[in-house]
Amino acid sequence: MNKRKIINDPVYGFITISSDLLFDLVEHPYFQRLRRIKQLGLADLVYPGALHTRFHHALGAMHLMSQALRALQERDHLIWEPELEAAQAAILLHDLGHGPFSHVLESVLLPGVEHESITLVMMKELNRQMDGRLDIAIQMFEGVYPRKFFHQMISSQLDMDRMDYLNRDSFYTGVIEGSIGADRLIKMLDISQDQLVVEEKGILSIENFLHARRLMYWQVYLHKTLLSAQAMLTEILRRARELSAQGENLFATPDFSRFLHNNFTLADFEENVDLLESFNNLDDNDVWASVKGWAKHHDEVLSTLCKSLLDRHLFKISFFKEMPEEEILKPLREKLLSQGLKESELSYFLITGETTNSAYEKEQDPIKVKMKNGTLLDIAAASDIPTIEALTKIVRKYYVCWGKNVSLRG
Amino acid sequence: MNKRKIINDPVYGFITISSDLLFDLVEHPYFQRLRRIKQLGLADLVYPGALHTRFHHALGAMHLMSQALRALQERDHLIWEPELEAAQAAILLHDLGHGPFSHVLESVLLPGVEHESITLVMMKELNRQMDGRLDIAIQMFEGVYPRKFFHQMISSQLDMDRMDYLNRDSFYTGVIEGSIGADRLIKMLDISQDQLVVEEKGILSIENFLHARRLMYWQVYLHKTLLSAQAMLTEILRRARELSAQGENLFATPDFSRFLHNNFTLADFEENVDLLESFNNLDDNDVWASVKGWAKHHDEVLSTLCKSLLDRHLFKISFFKEMPEEEILKPLREKLLSQGLKESELSYFLITGETTNSAYEKEQDPIKVKMKNGTLLDIAAASDIPTIEALTKIVRKYYVCWGKNVSLRG
Amino acid sequence: MNKRKIINDPVYGFITISSDLLFDLVEHPYFQRLRRIKQLGLADLVYPGALHTRFHHALGAMHLMSQALRALQERDHLIWEPELEAAQAAILLHDLGHGPFSHVLESVLLPGVEHESITLVMMKELNRQMDGRLDIAIQMFEGVYPRKFFHQMISSQLDMDRMDYLNRDSFYTGVIEGSIGADRLIKMLDISQDQLVVEEKGILSIENFLHARRLMYWQVYLHKTLLSAQAMLTEILRRARELSAQGENLFATPDFSRFLHNNFTLADFEENVDLLESFNNLDDNDVWASVKGWAKHHDEVLSTLCKSLLDRHLFKISFFKEMPEEEILKPLREKLLSQGLKESELSYFLITGETTNSAYEKEQDPIKVKMKNGTLLDIAAASDIPTIEALTKIVRKYYVCWGKNVSLRG
Amino acid sequence: MNKRKIINDPVYGFITISSDLLFDLVEHPYFQRLRRIKQLGLADLVYPGALHTRFHHALGAMHLMSQALRALQERDHLIWEPELEAAQAAILLHDLGHGPFSHVLESVLLPGVEHESITLVMMKELNRQMDGRLDIAIQMFEGVYPRKFFHQMISSQLDMDRMDYLNRDSFYTGVIEGSIGADRLIKMLDISQDQLVVEEKGILSIENFLHARRLMYWQVYLHKTLLSAQAMLTEILRRARELSAQGENLFATPDFSRFLHNNFTLADFEENVDLLESFNNLDDNDVWASVKGWAKHHDEVLSTLCKSLLDRHLFKISFFKEMPEEEILKPLREKLLSQGLKESELSYFLITGETTNSAYEKEQDPIKVKMKNGTLLDIAAASDIPTIEALTKIVRKYYVCWGKNVSLRG
Repeated sequence: MNKRKIINDPVYGFITISSDLLFDLVEHPYFQRLRRIKQLGLADLVYPGALHTRFHHALGAMHLMSQALRALQERDHLIWEPELEAAQAAILLHDLGHGPFSHVLESVLLPGVEHESITLVMMKELNRQMDGRLDIAIQMFEGVYPRKFFHQMISSQLDMDRMDYLNRDSFYTGVIEGSIGADRLIKMLDISQDQLVVEEKGILSIENFLHARRLMYWQVYLHKTLLSAQAMLTEILRRARELSAQGENLFATPDFSRFLHNNFTLADFEENVDLLESFNNLDDNDVWASVKGWAKHHDEVLSTLCKSLLDRHLFKISFFKEMPEEEILKPLREKLLSQGLKESELSYFLITGETTNSAYEKEQDPIKVKMKNGTLLDIAAASDIPTIEALTKIVRKYYVCWGKNVSLRG
Repeated sequence: MNKRKIINDPVYGFITISSDLLFDLVEHPYFQRLRRIKQLGLADLVYPGALHTRFHHALGAMHLMSQALRALQERDHLIWEPELEAAQAAILLHDLGHGPFSHVLESVLLPGVEHESITLVMMKELNRQMDGRLDIAIQMFEGVYPRKFFHQMISSQLDMDRMDYLNRDSFYTGVIEGSIGADRLIKMLDISQDQLVVEEKGILSIENFLHARRLMYWQVYLHKTLLSAQAMLTEILRRARELSAQGENLFATPDFSRFLHNNFTLADFEENVDLLESFNNLDDNDVWASVKGWAKHHDEVLSTLCKSLLDRHLFKISFFKEMPEEEILKPLREKLLSQGLKESELSYFLITGETTNSAYEKEQDPIKVKMKNGTLLDIAAASDIPTIEALTKIVRKYYVCWGKNVSLRG
Repeated sequence: MNKRKIINDPVYGFITISSDLLFDLVEHPYFQRLRRIKQLGLADLVYPGALHTRFHHALGAMHLMSQALRALQERDHLIWEPELEAAQAAILLHDLGHGPFSHVLESVLLPGVEHESITLVMMKELNRQMDGRLDIAIQMFEGVYPRKFFHQMISSQLDMDRMDYLNRDSFYTGVIEGSIGADRLIKMLDISQDQLVVEEKGILSIENFLHARRLMYWQVYLHKTLLSAQAMLTEILRRARELSAQGENLFATPDFSRFLHNNFTLADFEENVDLLESFNNLDDNDVWASVKGWAKHHDEVLSTLCKSLLDRHLFKISFFKEMPEEEILKPLREKLLSQGLKESELSYFLITGETTNSAYEKEQDPIKVKMKNGTLLDIAAASDIPTIEALTKIVRKYYVCWGKNVSLRG
Repeated sequence: MNKRKIINDPVYGFITISSDLLFDLVEHPYFQRLRRIKQLGLADLVYPGALHTRFHHALGAMHLMSQALRALQERDHLIWEPELEAAQAAILLHDLGHGPFSHVLESVLLPGVEHESITLVMMKELNRQMDGRLDIAIQMFEGVYPRKFFHQMISSQLDMDRMDYLNRDSFYTGVIEGSIGADRLIKMLDISQDQLVVEEKGILSIENFLHARRLMYWQVYLHKTLLSAQAMLTEILRRARELSAQGENLFATPDFSRFLHNNFTLADFEENVDLLESFNNLDDNDVWASVKGWAKHHDEVLSTLCKSLLDRHLFKISFFKEMPEEEILKPLREKLLSQGLKESELSYFLITGETTNSAYEKEQDPIKVKMKNGTLLDIAAASDIPTIEALTKIVRKYYVCWGKNVSLRG
């Protein structure tokens, strides 16, 4: 191999790119774009260190995949080199279909188009360009490769994606309590009946993993301030899109403009390589540059929202256990009107929503424990620890967020 | 105090904002802008973790300042609370005048205007807005405050700026050998004859500090690949500016346009608050969004350079001990012409330069050691270790960098 | 102050001895002895890094005390310098009364004498030697100092003792999942109604703390292999004591001999400074040197047990949810007899016991949370998280441990 | 394999014992003894965390060996599994021949017997017990195995022994500046002309390694306080041996007594398995227990020295560039006499010695760099950095150390 490369990583020390194929994937513009997309979107407004990119996360997940498969080989499971490479390729590419500020942007500009679907379209296009070298990787990604545990390592409760992002997000936010001890977890993995399982003595490690994940949800992913900032960016994009629809000329890079002006479906991506290229040109800079440009726009709703986000004057936000009723919303609405807002503008400055810590969960795929006698049990059954149950419980919260200090024409 | 705030920092754990004034400074749009300016510019093309911002660095330097002054108080040096706050304010603001991709952008768009000077203009404007609450901080920053050691803690060989950036850059690049042990260094600081000095038993720590700094220069700040990327961005901006001068309409945010079209001097900043506002609107996103927009420009020099930088197809680069002569440059020039370049375009694709590891040094301000008998010595004299001499030596290197695989109209 | 000293600590970086009194305490032979007593006794047989001493732990707890009190001062609670020093002195000395292999040795050689009581006797003797300089520290330790929260910082669910030992044990065992984030916890502490409390936004941190503590219990303090080794050492000491009582001459340091031959009560310690000196001469080396000497003793029970422990041929151990009944014990007993043991020797090679994760808990002193509205709630009530309940639950386990491969006269 | 085992290590996370042979070696009493021998002898008197054992160090070196050989395999060097196991076995056992407080004890009790020689005797005895399974390992250790680079990985300037101990000593002392970045170093290793070499881009890493090593010498291994404590222990053993020779009965474990009373040569070890067993029963506890016993001996020289060491009342020590002359020693001698010492006792309380940072170096085996053009150069020649020269320089220091506050019959 002549393209061997070692990349510095504050989290794991070093990441080795171990084959020519993997090297070529990393070099491809599709993958290089991920350098310009932050993993946690707006979270640096709360945790200033949280600037790590999907590029680094994907490399980290590839590293863990290689570590985990090597550990399985040491347990005398036969894993062929082409499988090892394919599994690394699949996890490397698993986030290609993310746009900037993923959930925010997708909800406004690409409703109904899942990022996993775009990822698959892009992987297939790459495979076409690379003459089929990604065939196995795509099978693993789609879950049709005969040995099912590979798919579980790419996408399941214990996949390398999740292990890296929890680890990495904990590291860069500085929320060290969210550290999951990926090293130890990986050493506890085994394969049984073609499934990815955890050996019995790993039960405490799994409990710790679930605990850390839960903590990261409340402390980071669903942090109040972050939800408020996301709500503001959502309203900015919604307003911009409406103004565009009304024929307003808005400052934006050409490709970002294209998405502001159209409603694309997954079929459009599949039929149109050109659209894929446009999508592939989007990154965080398009959004921030537009927000900066729009901060001077004559539409006061748009410019106020943009200026507030740039200067980090974020909306106030409150959580509720139930969807907040009129008695809570009414006084806020009146307050906003008294600050100079029009009725028609209220929806941009008074936002309700709900959130749940199951956003990233797929409970249909429970964690299996291999007991010393060889039987497989669900983690909750395998443990005599009552906390497992509590840890996996989904919590739903409702929030209201409003521009307490916004003043228009006031 | 009612604005006490704690910020997570992967480097130090927590940073405390310890007074209302400091809180108000952090909240100000001048300071919030630093969230969008990466400390190391293009270095993430080499070290993907190096995405930390000047915002976080400034907070970190403030933290070290507070630690260092508390340590000096424990040594029974009298330091008043207003001095403690002022020193923290000064170090917090010391980088306000940096534009995005500092040295690159300044050399093309603001030749002759030092960022320290813009910082001072901005600090004075802030002081005006805050009714003089920054008087002492500005005196310390300018070096006119009576107790000279405060200025040395803000700007000298052992200042808190440098301690934080070496520490932080080492952390985020993953070049852990560059770690300086700021904790220990700070505990070794003392004041003697109104100067910041190091106590004798800190000599090994200083040697380690100089060693780490040197290593960071060669491993990070002057890394070949980084120099190449910086050279490319410099040529991009140079070309964009020339096209603008020729009347071409180039995609750019309004404020970035203003700097592309004009040649401002320091006097312009001092006389024109409006220009300060424009400058304060510049950040990394303006540059990247423009590079992305320009990648589709019809001028092939501009679009080729931009596309190459985005896809990380960087120029090849070689170091030389002397300025490279014609026998080295001629074949490169001929090669480039054979790839389809015109004579007039050569200068964008064949770049020579020099670099030195003294870029950030100010040797006029040597590190003083307080010997056990109370005398002050220069570190080189205080140590019987021959490496100190070697470590402080300035090394100058020359480089040639060229678009080996660039092909225009080819 | 002329005795200022800084001590390196892998856990916190540096520990500062901040006053002459504290320096004199550290220098005293009572405290220096703790250098030779490992914090975790035999745990290095499971975790080879777990060699840290009570000396280092006590310094670490003093460090956290100083950090925590400084943080409370920053919250505008008035804490006098003499109080700060006294609280540090009290936590520094809180483990003086521990013998080597604390729980093992005390159960056999000093039944009924609590180590806290010996600590108090030693603190009073120190106070006598130091002309009353420890008056306040002793009041705080005993819980009679008027401001009650000082005692809580020395001994409660959230005391600095526990914070340091969890942190330190996690660090040196390498069980990093047990890390508690002491930094953040300390910043969440407050005082309300003269009690140590946690502010509302610290609830997740407390949950994390309880989780880490629970994990450390199962993973470290109650690790099967460790329990087995402790049972073996207990039997060694029991046999040695019996042989001594029968007039056998056993190799031992003079002071260790004294304890092997006598049954002392707390009153003996209080009345007899000479006994205190003997106790103060005991450390891990006495026990290990004796075990090594006894490994060659002609009594086969004693020598077999000693040789097995030295070579780490540990007894097999099994956990049970209920006290194991005859049907489990009988076959083991028969097996041992078939290996050549006499009936009278069985009790040394077949040991039952029980263990609970509440060993170190004092549930009478619940953790209080100060809600935003100022009310104080128990942590379980303050949290809407069901895991708190689960985490605080006491689990009791029973074990049988036996010399599976022991062969006497076989 | 059925004996696979994972051991927690705070330094590397986990260490895997990867074969049955390695497992059996770890289980052997020869190796288990290393649990009771601290790597750094008395250094915990200066750095209280420095309690790590030769047991853990040997496991760590085995881990690095495995990492390094795997990395060489990834560079397409053919390394057979039996070679991999043998190299790990050799490094695992390389320190077997160390006694407690190695250099101190050996200089007094075993003058002229090198610990490497005892190691070899023990390896051969193990090989006999294991029916030749250590044949290759012993060849590698002795340097007669055909592929020479294996021996260099066990014993040379860049061996895994040194990499682990620098790393580990830095970690446990808390002198983090001594951290060598073993991960990166290992990735820079290559084989050329059957020699262990470093690739050209690793030059900075080597420089860093040499720098760290030098720092560890002055900061740890040759720390003044440590040298003083070692001198005291040397005098204790010397006095005990003399008293033994005079027929005094001294408290000691049987095996330690044997060494106190005899002068063994290497031949004695080779001819006498029984002596090997006695040697193998020595560990730190024998020495400490004896020092504790002797602290009550009627010989005042012995008891005073022992009591001082136990209470950490260490001799004062001064460094000199030349062997100190009479004008320095005379006043010290007179002072000691005035404190009540007899002429004949002076030599125990006034000690001169010399020390050099080359103690562990073998300059006959320079570090080779493989340049990009394939040639091999010495590191000093390969680097254009003047510090390499300075770093490798041997510095010799002389010291005087004396019992400033000792008072006999005073």
